Amino acid sequence: MEDKYAFAKTIIKEAGLLIKDRMKDSLAIEIKTQHDDLVTNVDQETQDFLIAKIKQAYPSDHMIAEEGGICHAITDGKVWVLDPIDGTVNFIVQKANFAIMMAYYENGVGKFGLIYDVMADQLFSGGGDFAVTLNDQALASYQDKPLDRSLIGCNAGMLSRNDYNLHQLIDQTLGVRVYGGAGICMTKVLRQQLIAYFSYIQPWDYAAAAIMGESLGYVLLTLEGKQPDFQSRQKVMFVPKSKLATIQSLLKTNENTQ
Amino acid sequence: MEDKYAFAKTIIKEAGLLIKDRMKDSLAIEIKTQHDDLVTNVDQETQDFLIAKIKQAYPSDHMIAEEGGICHAITDGKVWVLDPIDGTVNFIVQKANFAIMMAYYENGVGKFGLIYDVMADQLFSGGGDFAVTLNDQALASYQDKPLDRSLIGCNAGMLSRNDYNLHQLIDQTLGVRVYGGAGICMTKVLRQQLIAYFSYIQPWDYAAAAIMGESLGYVLLTLEGKQPDFQSRQKVMFVPKSKLATIQSLLKTNENTQ
Repeated sequence: MEDKYAFAKTIIKEAGLLIKDRMKDSLAIEIKTQHDDLVTNVDQETQDFLIAKIKQAYPSDHMIAEEGGICHAITDGKVWVLDPIDGTVNFIVQKANFAIMMAYYENGVGKFGLIYDVMADQLFSGGGDFAVTLNDQALASYQDKPLDRSLIGCNAGMLSRNDYNLHQLIDQTLGVRVYGGAGICMTKVLRQQLIAYFSYIQPWDYAAAAIMGESLGYVLLTLEGKQPDFQSRQKVMFVPKSKLATIQSLLKTNENTQ
Repeated sequence: MEDKYAFAKTIIKEAGLLIKDRMKDSLAIEIKTQHDDLVTNVDQETQDFLIAKIKQAYPSDHMIAEEGGICHAITDGKVWVLDPIDGTVNFIVQKANFAIMMAYYENGVGKFGLIYDVMADQLFSGGGDFAVTLNDQALASYQDKPLDRSLIGCNAGMLSRNDYNLHQLIDQTLGVRVYGGAGICMTKVLRQQLIAYFSYIQPWDYAAAAIMGESLGYVLLTLEGKQPDFQSRQKVMFVPKSKLATIQSLLKTNENTQ
């Protein structure tokens, strides 16, 4: 597993260099499902690069990947979960604040995850048997602090609609931040710059953070408190285990209709 | 004026070092007006440092400053506008994403502004007769692009309440970002990572960006389209001049009750 983890760290950095190189050229931008759901030629090329590298090194491994909807059951064998550019809108508009994400599972058990903030050159990696690190410096486990000394990260749409009565939770804190891109947001949870993150996302958006978070005292669950399905887009929360009950008590769910 | 501008750049960097040094110790945090309006001993000490330096070098200059509510009419003589730590909540919780801001006016005319993102070591400065730069590299003037290829920055409360029907504007764009701290947000406008910023802020929150923005094609106005008063907390927008009419047509104001 050490070799596979080292391999993943190598190719995610190579993919970062590829993206930086392609940023010199103009982007070909396409709309996927709606006007703010975009993909570029660089998303596809980066994913092709990662898949080719993995197929070459580990021909029998399976994939779940964003572009082209590459699916596989997370519980079946050796599975890589790939997001070539998480935060594509930030990538297009800001030319920063996007990430490459990779996660590796064996029979449904997360072995390691990686989130690479390309422009900041910050690689978050580890989980499973590996220490969780930021550029090879160990990250601390979640240290408890009160909600009223914390910030919440949230998807803009869920915030605007007050899904699950999130405003009630946010009102107990110092406020909410919206950064765009699940990967960037969840690295801020791992660094304890946000206490929790709420969004409506896909398996490749949450897999890497879920594995790393598990090692640092966090849990990734649906807003209903269930394990995510690794198949569809779901509303999820990434929260400290020790704060889960408190946070759930403030959310309005089917089980908790306060 | 060159000397005064160089002096400002020197003391804002010194103030940054002071803050970084004080971050090694635990903070004394106090609530100002409400639970999420906080001030620390470092805010006060940094302001005291800046004022002492200015008073020593320019004894007859006046001040407007955040802590202690130091007031002066912006139109009366030589006036420094100071915010020792903009984004105090980010400073406390994230230990990043806060800024020191300084602006200098003579008889109501902005001569230069400075926003220093301390932890990123990014100094935005200039305006008036000086080129606007990021760490001494010139920043480009606003280059027009359509709203549907742009991001909006907004204060969380105004977003949640849909003040001025901001959601109608946001829906025309690729989305909204909430970073906390007017200074950090407005530097993202100056870098063209956000097309515009909306917030409910004080003179020391907008003075520096207003001066720099003026040189790059932006304008800082109240949501009603008026000049801000430099005396009170107001709802303002920081937008490209060439996009002002379009943006105003999408906002619901007293003058524009669509």
